[in-house]
Amino acid sequence: AGLGDDAAWLEGRPVADGAEDERLIVTTDTLVAGVHFLVSAPARTVAQKLLAVNLSDMAAMAARPFAYTLSLALSDAGDELWLEDFTAGLAAGQSQWGVSLVGGDTVATPGPLTATATMFGWAALDKLLTRSGARSGDIVFVSGTVGDAELGLRLLNGEFETANAADRDYLIGRHYAPSPRVELAQAIVALATAGIDVSDGLVADLGHICVASGLGAVVELDAVPVSPAAARLATGADWPSTTLATGGDDYELLFTGPTGNADRIEAVAAQLGVPIARIGRMEAGQGVRLLAADGADIEVESGGYRHF
Amino acid sequence: AGLGDDAAWLEGRPVADGAEDERLIVTTDTLVAGVHFLVSAPARTVAQKLLAVNLSDMAAMAARPFAYTLSLALSDAGDELWLEDFTAGLAAGQSQWGVSLVGGDTVATPGPLTATATMFGWAALDKLLTRSGARSGDIVFVSGTVGDAELGLRLLNGEFETANAADRDYLIGRHYAPSPRVELAQAIVALATAGIDVSDGLVADLGHICVASGLGAVVELDAVPVSPAAARLATGADWPSTTLATGGDDYELLFTGPTGNADRIEAVAAQLGVPIARIGRMEAGQGVRLLAADGADIEVESGGYRHF
Repeated sequence: AGLGDDAAWLEGRPVADGAEDERLIVTTDTLVAGVHFLVSAPARTVAQKLLAVNLSDMAAMAARPFAYTLSLALSDAGDELWLEDFTAGLAAGQSQWGVSLVGGDTVATPGPLTATATMFGWAALDKLLTRSGARSGDIVFVSGTVGDAELGLRLLNGEFETANAADRDYLIGRHYAPSPRVELAQAIVALATAGIDVSDGLVADLGHICVASGLGAVVELDAVPVSPAAARLATGADWPSTTLATGGDDYELLFTGPTGNADRIEAVAAQLGVPIARIGRMEAGQGVRLLAADGADIEVESGGYRHF
Repeated sequence: AGLGDDAAWLEGRPVADGAEDERLIVTTDTLVAGVHFLVSAPARTVAQKLLAVNLSDMAAMAARPFAYTLSLALSDAGDELWLEDFTAGLAAGQSQWGVSLVGGDTVATPGPLTATATMFGWAALDKLLTRSGARSGDIVFVSGTVGDAELGLRLLNGEFETANAADRDYLIGRHYAPSPRVELAQAIVALATAGIDVSDGLVADLGHICVASGLGAVVELDAVPVSPAAARLATGADWPSTTLATGGDDYELLFTGPTGNADRIEAVAAQLGVPIARIGRMEAGQGVRLLAADGADIEVESGGYRHF
């Protein structure tokens, strides 16, 4: 309410079932044209991505997002068509994810278009997914497939010229419009021990869980879920398939849970229709080890994803 | 809490004295180098201004600010001295205003430095200051002095070469580090009918109250409070003194209250040590009329302040 005033006021937290420990969850992410998205990206997909990266942070905490603010620094205030398409993308995302725009600021910039969203959600304090709760022996799960967004970006940049149209569309779509796992996170949080979203890349983000939990992790490369389109492109390509495990911007949910909960976790995910895969295990030590099918260690650049 | 995770969780709203109607208040503002502040502005003052413009929006709603998120798009990631000074400015502001940094994002940009803060506060739903509550006959008040920030900016841009050093320092300081009226707003909200902060300029912002309240307003130019430094510069200067009433970025509190509450409003402000002045009155009609000492209408550009 109060969009005409200097600030918005938000409806109070829903206190359901005497849940006295509900907390406001806040995250913020910025996208810069030419840094986080291609200048040629359709405005609608920029809006979707801006919402998705923030929603994915909500998922990483198992929060229930409900509102966001938007700050837009426009390099060319006259580009009304771009703004119309951007607004349509926001509207579609708001409707899909049940979040409302509660305020914002629009300014002029001589630089590239820069968009910042700050998103709000609710979560019960005892049902927060954090990076620090993993225990040795926990199974590592990931939702969906990884590496698609990296391949989508490479396609947009002119690589893989022989890819078929359907694979191109699918992978570029995954780059433009990731699927934040908001529902899945809420469904598994009571069964999981730690979680994060895959933004820097599977290996780097699992590394964040390792550091926060004071553990190491081992991942079997063959168990890492890859889409059919990604598998086709990777076959015979002139680069290591480990790239799929280190490529960023997939916004899948990466989480850990005790062995005893694994079946229930998979049942909950199946009920939501979200594919998840067991890809490894937490262990004593530090860092992420990536194993080949023969059990040999694979060297990867673990430094994390850098934007183009 | 949770700075190491993907999002922050915030302590729940304070439910004091059974105040069940507390609401989360949110605002966001963006500053772009070269647009909202001079590229030469000390980093510490940029931080202070970023907090101040958001705090001023909190004041305009009579909210109690407690936390903020920060997004920083840096044009030169290597400028560690700038960042150090900026961080010191944030720390000083946090301590002065009792707000905590609860999350953020730092990205690279090929464009100018762009900083977005999103600020959170609490307010009781029945103690919100809004733009729409003014009634015909209400007195119009403004805190502090207006026009200082405009003059400070003009000084930085090389105007008023003959100004003395003390006046220069004072006015430039008012441009760099405005004093958001957070406490005053909370103190007068129960006695006031409408409010806004002076960011676009006194005339333009009073115009916003007029539109929201479906009224007009009349302001006596001689009653508009001006600092001694501003008065000295304005005397004999080659531009109309109405510029003080239309200059932006003062971040003073502009509000209305019934005649019957005026004495109490002034007593409350005096107790806080914040000067306020009665500058005019709400009336039937629309738009803001500015009156000279002889009662004649003064023509002003009412379009609102444009950043340099």
